[in-house]
Amino acid sequence: MNPTFESIEQPTLLLDEAAARRNIRFMAEKATRLGLVFRPHFKTHQSAVIGEWFREQGVSKITVSSVDMAEYFADNGWQDIVIAFSLNLRQLERIKALARRVHLGILVENVDAIGALQETTDTRLDVWLKIDVGAKRTGLDWQDTATTASLCKMVNQKPAFHLRGLLTHSGHTYAAHSRAEVLEQFSETLLRMHHLKEELAELGIEPLEISVGDTPGCTLAENFEDADEIRPGNFVFYDVHQLSIGVCNFRDIAVAVACPVVAIHPEREEMVIYGGAVHLSKESIGWQGVDTYGLVSVPEGQGWSNPVPDAYVARLSQEHGILHYPPGAMKNYPIRVGDLAIVIPAHSCLAVQAMGQYRTLEGYKIRTMPQPYSTSIESGIHSI
Amino acid sequence: MNPTFESIEQPTLLLDEAAARRNIRFMAEKATRLGLVFRPHFKTHQSAVIGEWFREQGVSKITVSSVDMAEYFADNGWQDIVIAFSLNLRQLERIKALARRVHLGILVENVDAIGALQETTDTRLDVWLKIDVGAKRTGLDWQDTATTASLCKMVNQKPAFHLRGLLTHSGHTYAAHSRAEVLEQFSETLLRMHHLKEELAELGIEPLEISVGDTPGCTLAENFEDADEIRPGNFVFYDVHQLSIGVCNFRDIAVAVACPVVAIHPEREEMVIYGGAVHLSKESIGWQGVDTYGLVSVPEGQGWSNPVPDAYVARLSQEHGILHYPPGAMKNYPIRVGDLAIVIPAHSCLAVQAMGQYRTLEGYKIRTMPQPYSTSIESGIHSI
Repeated sequence: MNPTFESIEQPTLLLDEAAARRNIRFMAEKATRLGLVFRPHFKTHQSAVIGEWFREQGVSKITVSSVDMAEYFADNGWQDIVIAFSLNLRQLERIKALARRVHLGILVENVDAIGALQETTDTRLDVWLKIDVGAKRTGLDWQDTATTASLCKMVNQKPAFHLRGLLTHSGHTYAAHSRAEVLEQFSETLLRMHHLKEELAELGIEPLEISVGDTPGCTLAENFEDADEIRPGNFVFYDVHQLSIGVCNFRDIAVAVACPVVAIHPEREEMVIYGGAVHLSKESIGWQGVDTYGLVSVPEGQGWSNPVPDAYVARLSQEHGILHYPPGAMKNYPIRVGDLAIVIPAHSCLAVQAMGQYRTLEGYKIRTMPQPYSTSIESGIHSI
Repeated sequence: MNPTFESIEQPTLLLDEAAARRNIRFMAEKATRLGLVFRPHFKTHQSAVIGEWFREQGVSKITVSSVDMAEYFADNGWQDIVIAFSLNLRQLERIKALARRVHLGILVENVDAIGALQETTDTRLDVWLKIDVGAKRTGLDWQDTATTASLCKMVNQKPAFHLRGLLTHSGHTYAAHSRAEVLEQFSETLLRMHHLKEELAELGIEPLEISVGDTPGCTLAENFEDADEIRPGNFVFYDVHQLSIGVCNFRDIAVAVACPVVAIHPEREEMVIYGGAVHLSKESIGWQGVDTYGLVSVPEGQGWSNPVPDAYVARLSQEHGILHYPPGAMKNYPIRVGDLAIVIPAHSCLAVQAMGQYRTLEGYKIRTMPQPYSTSIESGIHSI
């Protein structure tokens, strides 16, 4: 067992740096090979230290999901940032301040946002239109050429704004059940983006870039049609969700939560760990017919073992997790109270957010962005 | 509208201090009236400032769910603390250090934990046996008198240990669907605890106190049988979960998350807010036939309105929330992009944990415990 595990006292987010670096290299090389701009989404790792691992692979453009995160990475030397979240008018001042410091891209999807932007700023900004290709989260409907065209024209009226193109997150690939389904949905995404781009070109609105984003599609696809840029995020760590779709192998998963065992209940084939919703998040995923918050593993070598077959995280409360084992299996894993169980999280982004710091298998601690994060002057709120 | 709402830029946890203080006073007075020790669980609010509101109601004994939290509240002047989480052997050193500073109670439920404790410490400790009365999370089965008795004897062998009694969290009341069901389950809990106490008394193991904990039972019950102590936590804020069972009224709910609206999709009766799983947590609850992460409200007066009928938080991703409105209802709430929606969370404990700070309706900021928190000497881990 990794000797640094001895010192683990409470739920600890383990990071397999070698696996994360492999994942980063894989995606960077793929983007280069296919002639795509690689603008990874940093919301998954939220760490300046891990950002440097991307920089070592030639990455200089990044995606973030909040103004806080944009400020944090700007403070850590990143100069080309897209905030891939539809413009929040309440943060205009911070966005303008940021746009004076770095090359900033923002997303808009409605006349309210563009109108307010036009009225209040002459700061140079890249503007992307957020397109919904079917995920039904948010964005302009890919079939609504008329509205999209009118928004493009509004953006173009302002000399300070640079209309970059069409951006989508085809998040419905996360609901796919197989690689084939991912590829089918991703291909449909690209065709829909292509269609909209062509329609807009016919109206004289060009050139427009196409930016696409999801980890399943970006990992599995080889054909990116006329996409110019990819923005995957989760791939840096992957997780049980991606494993369940067939997007990654188990050994590609780069994070896991080490949890002390506090009780063993052999009569119901369950084990209780110190590790709950505040550590793993409450996100669950269907896995081999059960709904689970994660898979179960044990310390092995410098890291963790393959998953214990058919064992899973069955329930979570605030600080407790219940691991369920198949009949008779617990005796094959001679775990005692005080030992560590290793949970592979259903969704790594949310587990990272919940934990706030990593411990690498080499024993180093890496912190994520402090939260809340802001480099702007504090507003006049009194603090007690 | 509350003038301080103007300055809200991003998801903000609003705290109705008056409601929280009413909730605290209600429970403190109830405990006094019924002759019960009131040892509130501080895991819900996790704040030294809010802790003082309890102190003003005469509270001097508290419950926490982690060693971090015990250290934090000890640092903030609390001298009588029970860590209501089955002993984690990996934190023995910190627990012993804490027990030398404050009057500390711990939970044990197996021979491994008691054995390790006996071998390694002569520090004065209150020891409670964790009993499972049917929630099937963890603890000694309430019917297993033999094992419980033998553990009691082990505790009694050590002069430094004070065997306090039997502690349970009848968490299955959270799965109740009505007040009647809560009362039935709570009454069963008390009878089971009473039964075990009597059986142990017959074996000469006495006196033993009984400590019970859940918010539904403690809020609704008037009969506490021979319970000596109550440890509710969630009641300080309540939430949609408690509302759905009938445990509280809407105006008892003391926290809500103010979220900027970033897009409106009238064609599908949905609105997109800046407010996702990282703000509300991914905990959902059944509410009037739908599964939801929260109810929807709007700013009104100094706080928030009654819930918009039949509107709910339908989906959450990392930073986005999707509010679903009943057909035709959106036009009755003339919300525009840039306005605030107010979400009443499904589970307030997890929303507080996710947000990390409150803003009172008077405009004050209150922080929760820094995380991770530790007053112990940092271990030898390198930090980068």
